[in-house]
Amino acid sequence: MELMKEYVQKYGHAIGDKILKVDSFLNHQIDPFLMMEVGKEFKKRFAGKGINKILTIEASGIAVGITTAFAFEVPMVFAKKNKPSTMADSYNATVFSFTKNKEYNITVAKEFLQKGDKVLIIDDFLALGNAILGLQSLCEQAGAEVLGVGIAIEKGFQEGGKMLRERGIHLESLAIIDSLQDGNIIVR
Amino acid sequence: MELMKEYVQKYGHAIGDKILKVDSFLNHQIDPFLMMEVGKEFKKRFAGKGINKILTIEASGIAVGITTAFAFEVPMVFAKKNKPSTMADSYNATVFSFTKNKEYNITVAKEFLQKGDKVLIIDDFLALGNAILGLQSLCEQAGAEVLGVGIAIEKGFQEGGKMLRERGIHLESLAIIDSLQDGNIIVR
Repeated sequence: MELMKEYVQKYGHAIGDKILKVDSFLNHQIDPFLMMEVGKEFKKRFAGKGINKILTIEASGIAVGITTAFAFEVPMVFAKKNKPSTMADSYNATVFSFTKNKEYNITVAKEFLQKGDKVLIIDDFLALGNAILGLQSLCEQAGAEVLGVGIAIEKGFQEGGKMLRERGIHLESLAIIDSLQDGNIIVR
Repeated sequence: MELMKEYVQKYGHAIGDKILKVDSFLNHQIDPFLMMEVGKEFKKRFAGKGINKILTIEASGIAVGITTAFAFEVPMVFAKKNKPSTMADSYNATVFSFTKNKEYNITVAKEFLQKGDKVLIIDDFLALGNAILGLQSLCEQAGAEVLGVGIAIEKGFQEGGKMLRERGIHLESLAIIDSLQDGNIIVR
């Protein structure tokens, strides 16, 4: 998606050769126009699949998730990292975060992820893909089908994209970063 | 806002006389059509104030925040509960949560909240108003001006709304709950 690539080039900052800061438009300050365009783009790329639910994870997935849900005219569900006291039965998965070097739990109430649901998983970033595997596990537990994974920015120099594609998942990334060496952001 | 009141009556559940569950459309599963309408409604209610930034708090504020930002054609910033390792200078405030009975920190990078910003604070729920005071404190630290507070659902039987209005804040709540006694949701 040209617009996402432009934003990354124009407003992104490489910190060392691993970290891409995009907090001026994607995950702290967020550009709502870009988000709406992202939603429309995912709608195009996953058209005709009968998707009836968008699944994402708090917090940074929510903005891309809700605009995608608006484009598809279906509900969005976001997995929570802490189970609220008011949540009854839930599906749970453990995700290991390499950036934070710790495990965390993700949870979705059973009533909002059901057998037969045709799910599109959406997230802002893809690095090693652990969050996506966690979300996929929630869907498997529910008997829901994952029909695709839509990512705003994929770090192409890390293993997540390759791993998901090798598993046969229909993965669409709107911008793929090939490298961040010497502070230069190389977008594929 | 009639639509919000309808959703609360139709899809909300009272648990005891204090807790209103709206996780089927507002804070776990989220209805994107409703969110877009909420954004347009806040645009109407806070028109002509020169608002140039929407400020909210993760996680449940993000969906209402981004659609409001889209309606205003301005950026949204969400305060984070954990400061990322990549965040440099930031404004911070402490918020006490009565529902979770603990304090938490909220933080916004200094570059995204600036002197002269005209801010509309948006959140999904208003109970005691502590999160709003925390967001207001971040704005004060930055020298930004809070021109209003927009809330999807206000618990009218708790003190937050009264406290904010007495401070002279322009507060707009799209649905106000007068009571939840005996499992009945009484909407004002």
